[in-house]
Amino acid sequence: MAIDYKKELQTAAKNMIFVHDPDLLIKMMVRMMVSKAKIAHASFFLHDKKREGYSLTVSKGSLGKKIPLDLIRIDKDDVLIRFFRSHLSRSVFGREALLYSEAKSVLKSSKIKQEVKQQLAHVLYQMELLESVVCIPSYFRDELLGVLLLGRKDNGRNFIDEELDFFTALNSNVAMAVRNAQLFKELGIELDRKHQLFVRTTIALAAAIEAKDHYTHGHTTRVTNLSLEIARRIGQKNKKDFDAKFLENLHIASLLHDIGKIGVPEHILNKRHELTIGERNRIKEHPMIGVNILKPIKELEGSMLGVRYHHERFDGKGYPDGLKGDRIPLIASIISVADSFDAMSTDRPYRLAMPKDDVVNEIGHLSGRQFCPRITDTFLELCKEGRI
Amino acid sequence: MAIDYKKELQTAAKNMIFVHDPDLLIKMMVRMMVSKAKIAHASFFLHDKKREGYSLTVSKGSLGKKIPLDLIRIDKDDVLIRFFRSHLSRSVFGREALLYSEAKSVLKSSKIKQEVKQQLAHVLYQMELLESVVCIPSYFRDELLGVLLLGRKDNGRNFIDEELDFFTALNSNVAMAVRNAQLFKELGIELDRKHQLFVRTTIALAAAIEAKDHYTHGHTTRVTNLSLEIARRIGQKNKKDFDAKFLENLHIASLLHDIGKIGVPEHILNKRHELTIGERNRIKEHPMIGVNILKPIKELEGSMLGVRYHHERFDGKGYPDGLKGDRIPLIASIISVADSFDAMSTDRPYRLAMPKDDVVNEIGHLSGRQFCPRITDTFLELCKEGRI
Repeated sequence: MAIDYKKELQTAAKNMIFVHDPDLLIKMMVRMMVSKAKIAHASFFLHDKKREGYSLTVSKGSLGKKIPLDLIRIDKDDVLIRFFRSHLSRSVFGREALLYSEAKSVLKSSKIKQEVKQQLAHVLYQMELLESVVCIPSYFRDELLGVLLLGRKDNGRNFIDEELDFFTALNSNVAMAVRNAQLFKELGIELDRKHQLFVRTTIALAAAIEAKDHYTHGHTTRVTNLSLEIARRIGQKNKKDFDAKFLENLHIASLLHDIGKIGVPEHILNKRHELTIGERNRIKEHPMIGVNILKPIKELEGSMLGVRYHHERFDGKGYPDGLKGDRIPLIASIISVADSFDAMSTDRPYRLAMPKDDVVNEIGHLSGRQFCPRITDTFLELCKEGRI
Repeated sequence: MAIDYKKELQTAAKNMIFVHDPDLLIKMMVRMMVSKAKIAHASFFLHDKKREGYSLTVSKGSLGKKIPLDLIRIDKDDVLIRFFRSHLSRSVFGREALLYSEAKSVLKSSKIKQEVKQQLAHVLYQMELLESVVCIPSYFRDELLGVLLLGRKDNGRNFIDEELDFFTALNSNVAMAVRNAQLFKELGIELDRKHQLFVRTTIALAAAIEAKDHYTHGHTTRVTNLSLEIARRIGQKNKKDFDAKFLENLHIASLLHDIGKIGVPEHILNKRHELTIGERNRIKEHPMIGVNILKPIKELEGSMLGVRYHHERFDGKGYPDGLKGDRIPLIASIISVADSFDAMSTDRPYRLAMPKDDVVNEIGHLSGRQFCPRITDTFLELCKEGRI
């Protein structure tokens, strides 16, 4: 016995706890068993809540001996599952692992109850079908988490106690690691769900506020999509400026860029004739009204830059702060182009939409004056490719 | 040696992975060592990112031998920490664990470098101060996660290899479990943060929408607080109806109950004179406008019941559906009382606020007609106690 099973087990345990993918964990275990102990094949059936049974999760071994994946699912009321669920292996053999050879000889003796004998005979028949000589259950607390099935050893010999102890210990470690991984996965799903809830609620409320401004139906959604499209393209060219957080901030900022319009009277927003200077100034308040609405939310700091500065101009003639050139945050420069493109492309109370080609030309024309050239370059590139 | 260390280790590993509190994990390990191996005292210094050092996390042992908690923190540049961070123990002694007696005799030999000798002498002096004879480092990947310090054995004998192997293995398991626990904690904090972000954004947007209705400043916040107060009291009396999810739904529903007013023209909301029947009907649309705004968000289904039905009446004379009695969802019945209380207690465009006592009497008077008696009973109870 050249293998130091104790050491193998320690190493395996160390690696397993930080693998948060149950399938990968089981694959690691099965691969290790097959290679270390030189077994013809091994497979693992993992409890599958949704399908109310045990699904073949991984199968490994020499050609022809391998159980085909997808093919096999064991029902939760199957004889093999019931056998281990009721801990019959422990009560009949004194260990969790079930050995085909040992069980065969026990079947011949008259020491065990007829009922158990029948059940055991069924289990052994199942093992024959699956060409397995050893079956090891995995429990988590009292629940049967899975079953490991092992084929013969390559050298034809029987498994020795040390090997069975190793398999059982490894299997039990994997059961824990799998539960741990499942918990991680559940927390991750929960986190994702919360994020979706936040984003979707923001979308719904932003859309409701937008609806006050009769002429901008769908504006928020279009600006958001276009901003993200531009940002992704810039990100492809120059990764260092961009990360998931930037895109998330941009997403929220685009959704909320006009939120401050809630503070502008409806009759100004929907006025059909030209606005007076006073009315125009009321509209120019909307970025700062937006900032005031969002200020209490510390996590939205990054997004707030987009809300505050999306009407700044590259030449410094914008509002509210008159920032110039590179002092305008990137997030705001992106929204500015997307916002203007959509505004020019759609009808407004005081004028009709411009044809798309004219809008694109106009944006190119205003590059370096109203807009940041870096953004317009990317925007025009996307237009050429027909992506806008 | 009566202790089956292998078995102890297996059992400990099984329990540890699902303890998601680092301090508790370390406490479990230290307690186990002290009791199983009969050691005078043991303590653990855990890496503390914030404090840039290693803080005494747990200390256990016979009276007088115990290191006082809070007192001791080892700096990240301390000689003991640097010794283990550079894996000197492994290179000098061939094992991670550092034994005082072994190190003392190595110091006398001339085989090791002067520089290492000096460092080791400092480390041993530290161990003397802490009355420790064994020091075991915990690594996670290549980072020093903590240091375990052990006192003498009660029987005065030296530690044997099997014990040291056990301590090292246990310590290494704990290091993994601690990292696992920290990851869980971080995910949990992240989840909480996302929830807060969702709630605070909802509050900000609801407040912005409320601001359109000049006369209802602070209405949403007050209705939310009162609804939650009533619900918590009902929950204390009858737990089965209530869980965290119900309170969460109620929280969001109260914040958004008037969200549909965004669809009602400003001049109707702020009209100073009595409303016409047509105008009244426009206002009565607000619950269904709210439902339409929130409908795309599946997770808000529970909250939507509160938005939709908060103007239903117990006698069936409310709107939009004319539901009667128990057919009105509890969440809506709670908001209904809180909403009416606040509306009557504050000035409106067309009338002044009523004195608080009159409002309370009126709500009692309307119990069983406008309001669900179960809610008004709780409401009046809270009033009597001066909590409203």
